[in-house]
Amino acid sequence: MADLDALTAELLAFRDARDWRQFHTLRQLIVSLNLEASELLELTQWQSDAEIDALPADPLSAEALRDECADVLLYLLLIADKTGIDLLAAARSKLRKNAEKYPVDKARGSRAKYTELK
Amino acid sequence: MADLDALTAELLAFRDARDWRQFHTLRQLIVSLNLEASELLELTQWQSDAEIDALPADPLSAEALRDECADVLLYLLLIADKTGIDLLAAARSKLRKNAEKYPVDKARGSRAKYTELK
Amino acid sequence: MADLDALTAELLAFRDARDWRQFHTLRQLIVSLNLEASELLELTQWQSDAEIDALPADPLSAEALRDECADVLLYLLLIADKTGIDLLAAARSKLRKNAEKYPVDKARGSRAKYTELK
Amino acid sequence: MADLDALTAELLAFRDARDWRQFHTLRQLIVSLNLEASELLELTQWQSDAEIDALPADPLSAEALRDECADVLLYLLLIADKTGIDLLAAARSKLRKNAEKYPVDKARGSRAKYTELK
Repeated sequence: MADLDALTAELLAFRDARDWRQFHTLRQLIVSLNLEASELLELTQWQSDAEIDALPADPLSAEALRDECADVLLYLLLIADKTGIDLLAAARSKLRKNAEKYPVDKARGSRAKYTELK
Repeated sequence: MADLDALTAELLAFRDARDWRQFHTLRQLIVSLNLEASELLELTQWQSDAEIDALPADPLSAEALRDECADVLLYLLLIADKTGIDLLAAARSKLRKNAEKYPVDKARGSRAKYTELK
Repeated sequence: MADLDALTAELLAFRDARDWRQFHTLRQLIVSLNLEASELLELTQWQSDAEIDALPADPLSAEALRDECADVLLYLLLIADKTGIDLLAAARSKLRKNAEKYPVDKARGSRAKYTELK
Repeated sequence: MADLDALTAELLAFRDARDWRQFHTLRQLIVSLNLEASELLELTQWQSDAEIDALPADPLSAEALRDECADVLLYLLLIADKTGIDLLAAARSKLRKNAEKYPVDKARGSRAKYTELK
């Protein structure tokens, strides 16, 4: 987790230079992550599937995608820091849970939710 | 980005073993990231600030927080893979933009949006 | 439902004068409703409970609240029109379901989800 | 607004019978509206446009759509009651603003945001 640790350190330095820790309650960080996720969703508004797939090839849209993904990651890192979550370990643990909920032989090629897999 | 690269490789192997790539359009990945962000928000529903701050100390709530943060990260990695975004570089680039929008001397101790900073 | 019917008629006239029906797939309307809900949520970002309760007393914030609530209602009416939903009947039916899930004697003064009510 | 007024009265009676007013801060109502909007969005997850358009024809999916739309309306009514907003007046006022931002001759047949209309 060295890379995410280094980025988190830069992010906390940015926050502390502005004395913003006082505003970063867990509630506010979660709300802010949701707002950034919405800005990512907004890039798809009124767009067809083909237009959305073409966003990364357009420089301005690609930059917007990068910026919104970055904002989601930055708030996720602040939440992880605040709650003591090791994001990489949490992701691997969740992948293992998902592997149990979606066994390959039942989930292969299916969009069904695990509660509906036969 | 070695750590995120390794996790992304595991995630793509999970996806491909289930033949799910066909469902992972950029639109669907962005919608799914929003739904996972909402599940994180749901953990704060009807809770006071103090109760939210106490979530990480409760084992069941801490696991829920870990799982939802993991889900957000996993979809973010799928989006980054799909669009060719280097997440760490994007986050550092966004932090630099934010540093320009929120100069320390004006933003210190303020919650104002950059458009409202004097 | 006379009042909502009249408003819906005005809304559809607004839409058709601009030839926008072609863009109003059910998916796009649902995404747009979510984006408007997010704009409402954004009014609470970085605000304390007391500051949020004071929003309606501030003319500019009150107007923002009115506009975002209006946007949510307008997309809800478009969704209802598109899907043939009678919103008032649907709301009354849902209230009856909620009354069964949350019986007065068990739910009184409790924030617990119905799955956790004893 | 007679119809919405009557529904609001039923909703407030439902709330007060359970002594839930104490939980209904403006923040919590706005968060809850967002969560209900997400449940509506979830009905579109992994679905194609054609599958989404077919949802109202499937009895179970139609009921889910009705219930989620109802939940959005119910929280919107609680927010309007709490903030003193006249929803129908707010919607008509917003439609007038939109008519100015999107004049028929410029917006006809266009998905462009008003800031991009020439």
